[in-house]
Amino acid sequence: MTSAIPQNCVLINGLPDVGLVGLLGASHIISSLRLQEVGSLECDQLPPMIVLHGGLPKSPIRIFAGNSIMVLISETTVPVSLLRPLANDLTEWAKKVGIQLVLSLGGMAVANRQDIDVPKVYAAISQRGLESKLNGAAEILEEGYIVGAYGLLLRRCAETSVPAITLLTQSFYNYPDPEAAAASLRAVNKILGSDIDVSELLKRGEEIRLRSKDMMHRTQEEMLKMNKSHEYDLPPLYG
Amino acid sequence: MTSAIPQNCVLINGLPDVGLVGLLGASHIISSLRLQEVGSLECDQLPPMIVLHGGLPKSPIRIFAGNSIMVLISETTVPVSLLRPLANDLTEWAKKVGIQLVLSLGGMAVANRQDIDVPKVYAAISQRGLESKLNGAAEILEEGYIVGAYGLLLRRCAETSVPAITLLTQSFYNYPDPEAAAASLRAVNKILGSDIDVSELLKRGEEIRLRSKDMMHRTQEEMLKMNKSHEYDLPPLYG
Amino acid sequence: MTSAIPQNCVLINGLPDVGLVGLLGASHIISSLRLQEVGSLECDQLPPMIVLHGGLPKSPIRIFAGNSIMVLISETTVPVSLLRPLANDLTEWAKKVGIQLVLSLGGMAVANRQDIDVPKVYAAISQRGLESKLNGAAEILEEGYIVGAYGLLLRRCAETSVPAITLLTQSFYNYPDPEAAAASLRAVNKILGSDIDVSELLKRGEEIRLRSKDMMHRTQEEMLKMNKSHEYDLPPLYG
Amino acid sequence: MTSAIPQNCVLINGLPDVGLVGLLGASHIISSLRLQEVGSLECDQLPPMIVLHGGLPKSPIRIFAGNSIMVLISETTVPVSLLRPLANDLTEWAKKVGIQLVLSLGGMAVANRQDIDVPKVYAAISQRGLESKLNGAAEILEEGYIVGAYGLLLRRCAETSVPAITLLTQSFYNYPDPEAAAASLRAVNKILGSDIDVSELLKRGEEIRLRSKDMMHRTQEEMLKMNKSHEYDLPPLYG
Amino acid sequence: MTSAIPQNCVLINGLPDVGLVGLLGASHIISSLRLQEVGSLECDQLPPMIVLHGGLPKSPIRIFAGNSIMVLISETTVPVSLLRPLANDLTEWAKKVGIQLVLSLGGMAVANRQDIDVPKVYAAISQRGLESKLNGAAEILEEGYIVGAYGLLLRRCAETSVPAITLLTQSFYNYPDPEAAAASLRAVNKILGSDIDVSELLKRGEEIRLRSKDMMHRTQEEMLKMNKSHEYDLPPLYG
Repeated sequence: MTSAIPQNCVLINGLPDVGLVGLLGASHIISSLRLQEVGSLECDQLPPMIVLHGGLPKSPIRIFAGNSIMVLISETTVPVSLLRPLANDLTEWAKKVGIQLVLSLGGMAVANRQDIDVPKVYAAISQRGLESKLNGAAEILEEGYIVGAYGLLLRRCAETSVPAITLLTQSFYNYPDPEAAAASLRAVNKILGSDIDVSELLKRGEEIRLRSKDMMHRTQEEMLKMNKSHEYDLPPLYG
Repeated sequence: MTSAIPQNCVLINGLPDVGLVGLLGASHIISSLRLQEVGSLECDQLPPMIVLHGGLPKSPIRIFAGNSIMVLISETTVPVSLLRPLANDLTEWAKKVGIQLVLSLGGMAVANRQDIDVPKVYAAISQRGLESKLNGAAEILEEGYIVGAYGLLLRRCAETSVPAITLLTQSFYNYPDPEAAAASLRAVNKILGSDIDVSELLKRGEEIRLRSKDMMHRTQEEMLKMNKSHEYDLPPLYG
Repeated sequence: MTSAIPQNCVLINGLPDVGLVGLLGASHIISSLRLQEVGSLECDQLPPMIVLHGGLPKSPIRIFAGNSIMVLISETTVPVSLLRPLANDLTEWAKKVGIQLVLSLGGMAVANRQDIDVPKVYAAISQRGLESKLNGAAEILEEGYIVGAYGLLLRRCAETSVPAITLLTQSFYNYPDPEAAAASLRAVNKILGSDIDVSELLKRGEEIRLRSKDMMHRTQEEMLKMNKSHEYDLPPLYG
Repeated sequence: MTSAIPQNCVLINGLPDVGLVGLLGASHIISSLRLQEVGSLECDQLPPMIVLHGGLPKSPIRIFAGNSIMVLISETTVPVSLLRPLANDLTEWAKKVGIQLVLSLGGMAVANRQDIDVPKVYAAISQRGLESKLNGAAEILEEGYIVGAYGLLLRRCAETSVPAITLLTQSFYNYPDPEAAAASLRAVNKILGSDIDVSELLKRGEEIRLRSKDMMHRTQEEMLKMNKSHEYDLPPLYG
Repeated sequence: MTSAIPQNCVLINGLPDVGLVGLLGASHIISSLRLQEVGSLECDQLPPMIVLHGGLPKSPIRIFAGNSIMVLISETTVPVSLLRPLANDLTEWAKKVGIQLVLSLGGMAVANRQDIDVPKVYAAISQRGLESKLNGAAEILEEGYIVGAYGLLLRRCAETSVPAITLLTQSFYNYPDPEAAAASLRAVNKILGSDIDVSELLKRGEEIRLRSKDMMHRTQEEMLKMNKSHEYDLPPLYG
C-alpha cells in the first residue's frame, strides 16, 4: 500500500467470478471514476503472469483509490489454496485502516439468464443492521451456499465485525455478462449514493465480452475446482 | 464452543454420508427441536465455502444445542485427510465436556432399497453394555467394515472409553433418502426416549431430495475417494 | 502390544496380496486355532476404515496369538508409502521380542491357475540354513523379483539376521483363492509341525470367495500401483 | 559466473517460448558473434538432462559473453515453479553486476502468421524513458498480459529499477519460427546499434525448424501448463 | 560398500535405459567375469521390490567387483527424483575411492534399428584427452542432449574432474536389445583392453529378450516421464 487511506472509505471487490460480474463492474468503476493505482498484491502461488498497462508491467491484483472509494481487482484467477489467506489478510487490513464497508461484487448463475432483461441483485450481509444500507438495492439472500473468496471474506468480516455486503447479481455462469455488471453497479449507486454511469458499460458490451472471454475461460477452470457451479441450492437444513 | 455444555448431554452426529441419512436426520432434529447454534468448526483444509442462514454467513460445520441434546452437522464434505483429526478431536472434546453418549447417524447402502418400505436400522457400539441402550431400536452389526469418519470416530471412542453408538440405516447409496432419515430418527427416539416427530420430514421428502441433490453429488465424490461403496461386505476373517 | 510374547514364537504374516492367499490362510489359522487378539497397528496414512468384529470396532491391522504362534493380518490394503516403514518396524519388533521365525504367506500369480489342481508352493529365505526347516514343504525360488511388503520384509530380516521364510503359493492373480490358501497352510504344517485342518477352508471356499471379493478388488488397485503383476519373471542378470 | 562482467553490459535473454523466437535468436547471436561461455545455471527442479557441445557435457542453461553483450539461453524448459526464483535471481544478479539493459526476446503468437511476410515486433518496457532506446525498432504494447518468465522478469526489473525491454515478435505459436527470430534480431540491431547478420538464420531456416521441433514440443507442454496460449487478449479493465 | 576397492579401478554402469543396453551388457560382464557382489544401494524412494538371487533377497541396485573392474547394475527403474542424488553421490564416491574411469553403457534409440546389422557406438566424454582412451571403439557425439542418469552423471564427473565416458549404442527404443549390448561390450573391450566374450549374449538373445521384457516395460514408463524419447536431436544452438 503506497499511499494514505481516506477516512470512512468503502472497499469494492471485483474478483473473477461467475460471469465476471465483479471484475467487469469494478473495472468500469476504476475507469469511469478515474481512480489511481495505490497498491498491489504479489504472491508466489499466483499464476506466473503480469498485466501490461500503459506499456508498463503491473501485478494482476491491484488496489485503486479515489475520493473515498477503494477498488480491488484481480486480473488473474486466485488458486483455491490462496482463497483463505486472501480473505483473512484483506479483512485484517480493512479493519486496520478503518474501512467503513467491504462491498463485494459477485454473480449468481441462473439457468434462464437469456430470458431475463433486468438481472435481479441479491445481497448477503456480515451482520444485522446492514439491511438498512441496501436502500432497496438488493434482496437479502436468506439461505444458500457461497463458494469461493467472497464467501470466506464475508464470514471473516462477520467474525471480526467488519461491515460487509456481498452483492450477487443474476448472470450467465460462464459468459462475461456486462449487463449483470451494470445491474450490479446500479445497486452500488443506491447503496453508496454514488452516481456511476453504466451507459458506456452497456454500449461496449459486445467488445467487452470478446476481450474478456479468455479471462472467463481461466476463471471457469478455477470455479470447477471448487464446485462453484453447485452453490445456490438451498442447504438441506433449512426452510 | 461459545456456551456451557449441559450435564449428561448426548451428542448426535449428522455428517454427509450414504443417502445423506445423517445430515437430513440431524437437520430435522435441529429445526423440529428448535436447537440453537452454540459453536462451529473451521479448518483450512475444508472446501472454500460458507452457508448462508437467515442472510448471515455461517461455517458449514456447526454444533447446535437444546435441552440435553447437542447436534453436530456438516453441510460440506470432509476431505479424507481430515477424517482422523476430526474423529480424534471430537472424541477428546466429548470426553472433556462429559458427553454421555455419542450417537452417530449413518446410512447403509442396500442395492434393493426401492423394494424396502421400512428401512432397517443396524447399530455398531463402542463397548459392551451399550446394547441395553438400544431398546430394540436397532440390530447389532456383528461383522463388517465401516469406512469414513463414523468408523474412525467409533474406534476412537472405544479406545478412550467414550460411550458411542453408530446407527446405520438401510438407504440409497447416492440418492438423498429422507425415509431412511426418518427411520433413523425413530430409532433415536427409542434410544433417547425422545419424541421427535418425523411426519414433516416424510411429507416434505420430495422437496428435500431436490434441495440436497447437489450436496449428495459432492458427498458421493468424497465417498468414492475412500472406497465407501465397498464397505458392508463381511471381512474374510470371520464367521 | 498388550500382552507378553511367548518364548520361541513364530510370527505368521497374512497381508492382502495376490489371490489373498496370505489373508485367507492367516485368517483361517486365527479362527481354527482360536487365537486371541493381542495387539493392533494404527497409522494416519492407512485408509480411513475400521473392522467390526463381534459388534465392536477394531483396527484393520491386528496381531493374534496362542500357544507359540502369532499371526499378523491386515484387513486393509497398505499404501505403497507405508511398505518400508511396516517392513522395518515389524522386523525390529520381531528381533526385540525374539521371534524365532518370520513366516509370510504370499501368492504367486500363474496364468494357468485353473488347470492346476494342487497349487505348488515356493519359498524364499532370508539366510542359508533355513532350507532345512522347509521339510520339503516348498521349493526354493532361486531367481526372481518380489514386489511389495513381503519382499522388503524378507530383505530387512536378512540384513538384521532375523530368520524369515516367505511362502509363495501358485494362485489366481485377482480372484480370492482359498485352495491356494489351503496349500499354503499345508506347507505351514510341514514347516511348524503343526496340524491345522484346512477342510473347513476348502468346504466354505465359494462363500469365502464372495465375502472377500471387495477386499480383493481394493488389493488389486494397490498391487497395480507397484507393478505387482510384473514380478516373477527372471531378472535379466541371471541364469 | 566464472569470469568478470564487462562494463555497461547488455543482457540478452533467449528462453524457450512461443515459436522459440528467443532461443533461436539468442543462439544465432552466440554463434555469429562467437561469444564464449562464461557461466551456467543448475537447479534440482530442472528436467534431468544435459546438452553435449563439442562432445562435452553442459548445463542446459548457460550464459555467454563477448564485447559488451551477454546472452542467457536455456536449452531446457523451465518448470512453472522455477519461473519466479529465476526472474528474481536474474534481476538481482543484473543489478549487482551493473547490467545496463535487460533485453528479452519473446514471441507473440498470431493466428494468421503464415499471411505475414515481415513479423512485427512489439515491446514492453520496465520504466518510462526506455521508449527512446527503441529507435523505432518496435511498437510499445500498451495493454495485455504477459505469461511466463519474461512477464515476471519485466515486473521484477521494474520494481528494482533495472532497465528492461521485452521484445515480442509476431510468430507461430508452436512451430519454430526462424523468420520471427530474424525480425527480432533486426530490432536488437536497431536498439543496440549492433550489426548482427541474420542471413544465415534465414538461409538455414528449414534445417533449424527440423532440429528444434522436439524442443518446441517440450516448450509447448510447459506453455500449456501456464495458459500461455491465452495471453495477448486485452485485459477487461482497459481501453 | 563391504570390501576394499582395488587400485585404478574402472566403474562400469548398467542402469535401465533405452533398449536395456546397459543393464544387459553389465549383467553379462558380471556373469562372464564371475564378479562378486561387494555392495548395494538402498533408498526409500525406490520402488518397493527386491531381487531373489540364489534364493536370497538382494537390493535391486548392487555393485559387483573382480580384478580391477567394478560394475553397478540396477534391476529396478530409478525414479526421476532420485537421478540427481544418484549421479552426485556416485561421482563423489568414485572420486573418494579413486576410480580411474567411470564407463557408462547406454543406448541411443534409432528408428531404423532393424535395418542395422552392427549397431554403431557413440561416446560422450567428461573431459578432453579421453578421446585417446577410445581406441576407435566409438565416435564422439559432438552435439545433442542426454536425458536421465547418464547425462547428469557425465556432467557431474566433468565438474569434479572424474574421468568419465558414456557409450551410447544404437538400439531399439523399447525392445531389449542384446545385439546392441554386445556391440557395447566390444567397445568396452577396446577401451579397457579386456576380452569379454559376447557370443553367449548373442546366442541366448531371444531368451534374454523374453526375460527382460517386463523390466523394459517398467523402464519405458520412467523414460516417458523424462521425455527420454526426445533426446538425440541436435540442440537449436549449434552446427
